[in-house]
Amino acid sequence: MIDINSFGVLGGDKRQIALAESIASDGYTVYVFGFDNVEFSRDIKKAGLEEITAHCENLILPLPVTTDGLNLNTPYCDEKIELNDRFAERMRGKQVYGGMIAKLIQTSEVWDSVDIYDYYNREEFTIHNAVPAAEGAIEIAMREYPGTVNGSKCLVVGYGRIGKVLAWMLRGIGASVTVSARKHSDIAWIESYGYHSIFTDNICDKDQYDVIFNTVPARIFNRRLLSKMHSKPLIIDLASQPGGVDYESAEDFGIKTVHALSLPGKVAPKTAGEIIKTTIYNIMEE
Amino acid sequence: MIDINSFGVLGGDKRQIALAESIASDGYTVYVFGFDNVEFSRDIKKAGLEEITAHCENLILPLPVTTDGLNLNTPYCDEKIELNDRFAERMRGKQVYGGMIAKLIQTSEVWDSVDIYDYYNREEFTIHNAVPAAEGAIEIAMREYPGTVNGSKCLVVGYGRIGKVLAWMLRGIGASVTVSARKHSDIAWIESYGYHSIFTDNICDKDQYDVIFNTVPARIFNRRLLSKMHSKPLIIDLASQPGGVDYESAEDFGIKTVHALSLPGKVAPKTAGEIIKTTIYNIMEE
Amino acid sequence: MIDINSFGVLGGDKRQIALAESIASDGYTVYVFGFDNVEFSRDIKKAGLEEITAHCENLILPLPVTTDGLNLNTPYCDEKIELNDRFAERMRGKQVYGGMIAKLIQTSEVWDSVDIYDYYNREEFTIHNAVPAAEGAIEIAMREYPGTVNGSKCLVVGYGRIGKVLAWMLRGIGASVTVSARKHSDIAWIESYGYHSIFTDNICDKDQYDVIFNTVPARIFNRRLLSKMHSKPLIIDLASQPGGVDYESAEDFGIKTVHALSLPGKVAPKTAGEIIKTTIYNIMEE
Amino acid sequence: MIDINSFGVLGGDKRQIALAESIASDGYTVYVFGFDNVEFSRDIKKAGLEEITAHCENLILPLPVTTDGLNLNTPYCDEKIELNDRFAERMRGKQVYGGMIAKLIQTSEVWDSVDIYDYYNREEFTIHNAVPAAEGAIEIAMREYPGTVNGSKCLVVGYGRIGKVLAWMLRGIGASVTVSARKHSDIAWIESYGYHSIFTDNICDKDQYDVIFNTVPARIFNRRLLSKMHSKPLIIDLASQPGGVDYESAEDFGIKTVHALSLPGKVAPKTAGEIIKTTIYNIMEE
Repeated sequence: MIDINSFGVLGGDKRQIALAESIASDGYTVYVFGFDNVEFSRDIKKAGLEEITAHCENLILPLPVTTDGLNLNTPYCDEKIELNDRFAERMRGKQVYGGMIAKLIQTSEVWDSVDIYDYYNREEFTIHNAVPAAEGAIEIAMREYPGTVNGSKCLVVGYGRIGKVLAWMLRGIGASVTVSARKHSDIAWIESYGYHSIFTDNICDKDQYDVIFNTVPARIFNRRLLSKMHSKPLIIDLASQPGGVDYESAEDFGIKTVHALSLPGKVAPKTAGEIIKTTIYNIMEE
Repeated sequence: MIDINSFGVLGGDKRQIALAESIASDGYTVYVFGFDNVEFSRDIKKAGLEEITAHCENLILPLPVTTDGLNLNTPYCDEKIELNDRFAERMRGKQVYGGMIAKLIQTSEVWDSVDIYDYYNREEFTIHNAVPAAEGAIEIAMREYPGTVNGSKCLVVGYGRIGKVLAWMLRGIGASVTVSARKHSDIAWIESYGYHSIFTDNICDKDQYDVIFNTVPARIFNRRLLSKMHSKPLIIDLASQPGGVDYESAEDFGIKTVHALSLPGKVAPKTAGEIIKTTIYNIMEE
Repeated sequence: MIDINSFGVLGGDKRQIALAESIASDGYTVYVFGFDNVEFSRDIKKAGLEEITAHCENLILPLPVTTDGLNLNTPYCDEKIELNDRFAERMRGKQVYGGMIAKLIQTSEVWDSVDIYDYYNREEFTIHNAVPAAEGAIEIAMREYPGTVNGSKCLVVGYGRIGKVLAWMLRGIGASVTVSARKHSDIAWIESYGYHSIFTDNICDKDQYDVIFNTVPARIFNRRLLSKMHSKPLIIDLASQPGGVDYESAEDFGIKTVHALSLPGKVAPKTAGEIIKTTIYNIMEE
Repeated sequence: MIDINSFGVLGGDKRQIALAESIASDGYTVYVFGFDNVEFSRDIKKAGLEEITAHCENLILPLPVTTDGLNLNTPYCDEKIELNDRFAERMRGKQVYGGMIAKLIQTSEVWDSVDIYDYYNREEFTIHNAVPAAEGAIEIAMREYPGTVNGSKCLVVGYGRIGKVLAWMLRGIGASVTVSARKHSDIAWIESYGYHSIFTDNICDKDQYDVIFNTVPARIFNRRLLSKMHSKPLIIDLASQPGGVDYESAEDFGIKTVHALSLPGKVAPKTAGEIIKTTIYNIMEE
């Protein structure tokens, strides 16, 4: 019998473990699959795919659903779960939620007739994830920079989601914060909140930072720019692959860099799992 | 002879006085017109309209340019300056900057061939003005609320420009801050910054605020909502006319209200003048 | 019959009115005397001195108890209440609480055998009052300074109770804050919290402030120092009489000053009353 | 020839390396001893003990000067430098600065006639060190707590130097902060800054924290208290040996603990070195 208030969590990493626990603590029935050696609290039932799809109305796939385009992303499971017509057929008639579903949908035409939602695309998901990303960047700065972040001169490149939260937290622990942006309106915001502002094109003009956080997905820190840096700041690059820094040149010039990727899942899986939960609840309410 | 680095400031209130002073302190030549009994610093020259238009490349009209649609807005001048073809002709060939120019343009067809820019429409102008608006609202709260804002329970309705700055400042002086919004993405931002969040439709559910700041230009606080408020908060309404509060009903229920309009020019003319200057400089650079 | 859980509030200003209301809202029986035309909520009983002393275990005198050393401080009462042996006799056997009781005690030898406590002397009273004092100072700055406090350069002279809270709030609304002190240890604290620091002897060296708040009870701003100030800051003096500024000289040099006294009672009587209440409760618990 | 503006840095860890670099960057001549394989910038000269004492007016000993009471604390040097009469004789006529000098002075009676100062005892040293200690504690919390510190419920036990800075930083990154103290006056401070307050004796009453930071050098978290904790918070203990937590009991109850010692030197040697420098400069000025 299908239980409307039941959730099946199929595969994923620590975030999905936290997600399962968090849903269960809200009083819902939760089944999990794909976590061979993981211990869950008593309310959560481990089950096979068949059992789960027989019982659960809501099925949650991991983030990303698949890394290779062929199998479900199940780092806690030895067995491979192939993504094929049979898998997709099981999802029919359910509410299915997944993160980055583009590759999944290519695995079977059946998906065209399944109610599937991508929680990764939701704006509130991205906004909420800026918090663990920013906090992860600060943890790296605290560990790698030999002084305290308090009292240091920090530059945040880019005033998008992560830039906003990062600048706010850095000031919150007592750093001197400069934020760069390209648009006059962003510069206005930066100044309204009391940060120092600079246009991104001019960041090389003021070469006096201890730590630089790059949040812009573009090769800002190219060889030419790096060659002009005399104070050798620590650069923490939050831009996704290939990153915003010419890493080879940085090494040549003796500038220490950290390419920090996928921070939310790494530094705060519990929070990252709860963000997925909140997003799914929001989708369900609509 | 026309001087490219010269500015004429024609009419306006304290903001334009501050604007003239601020431009002069940047080293530019400044002429002013329409400030009969105002004393300026030595570098600024009072002159007639003719003299100014003969000398100045850049002409700055007030905010708003006109209140009645017929005459220039010159509260510091006894004489009326009619906005007509002759006035518009004088502006030809210049760079003209005005605030809220819609009514001005209707006064003469000549304006179609004048280079005129509305600084009031620029996004960075609106963003920067959120600061004096928010600070003015806090000053009112400090004056009208019989306790301290520090430690009080404040609700900010709306997370637009003013709402963002207001919430940030309120927390900065130690208030407990709840912010309401309509969109999931705004709620995500509110929570990321550590405020309490509530959907605007539900603000009546939690009736425990000491001070409420309304920033939404809609009749949120109607009779029905006001009738449910038992704790009698102070309501400071920042929404432009006709405002977001049913003022008569509020009075019936013994709820104190303040309709706070045009705060930037009133509470911080110096800052408001500098914001106009920055915006004009930005337009000139583009 | 004496009720241990009953309080008599005898005279005082708006703070004592707020105090009476706040004690009543905690569920205690409250009698008031000395508030002729003041309306209280229903639970609070107006009564004569005799009736109150017959019923109440705890008697609360105003702050200050007396201004002239002869009569009770009763601004809301036309009649004068003489402080003499008879008045003191009525207090015998009670728990009596008053603010600044030195002059009171000189009015009768009977006081030597009365249990009387000075809530004004308690450290937590002074600390809590730093909040309304600081907030009152900021309200004045917002009103008198023609720009926004946000973005302005503020100097706080002295890092005692009020200086600490004031510096914290000023930064909270986005001011650039410098704090002066005399001791190395205070300078260390100021820097740890991320403010700019300066030794009080050197405050004339950096003459670039928009607003100066003096919290030190000494004539810091003498004619010599004022004569060196070229930027004409607004000076808000929080030092009690005679104040920390040579006011005549300031006027000579065109420097605007505000001597802000007794801020807590003026700007936030509700909070100031609650602080008295908390302090009295603390005394009772000990 | 003795150079008044020259410093000799004798032994120590990364903090003394940073100290030497920082003094050199101020333009002073710096000699170092006891750093065999460490590379310094060009201005700093490695020298033997004899050469250094021949040249330098100011000699800086490490923190602590000695760990075993017999030899100089020189982790970067293979050779042992015995603390004896001969060593002390070399210091005669110099200005000598050391950290925790009690054991040093017992090594020779010559010390009685040497001008030696303990920078570790200075109040500004301890205050400044609260910053790297607090930041180190936050780094641990970010690493060990599976959620984000932003949005988490934190308890800071004790409102001394580290407690003050820690509470301030935690709120700065968006945690919900409760601070415990024993005195009414500290509770007043805690509330003035807008934190939640609780008396240290009652911290078990509210069992809802995600992370607890203990700054009190007493066995607060004994078996009885730990047994009552149902929410299994992460406890980060900053109290020096033996610490404020019954670690065995904590393990029995499944409560995760971290005993964080000597944080400043570990997490921010550069800042810790600069704090030593500032303190020595202050002593020299007096």
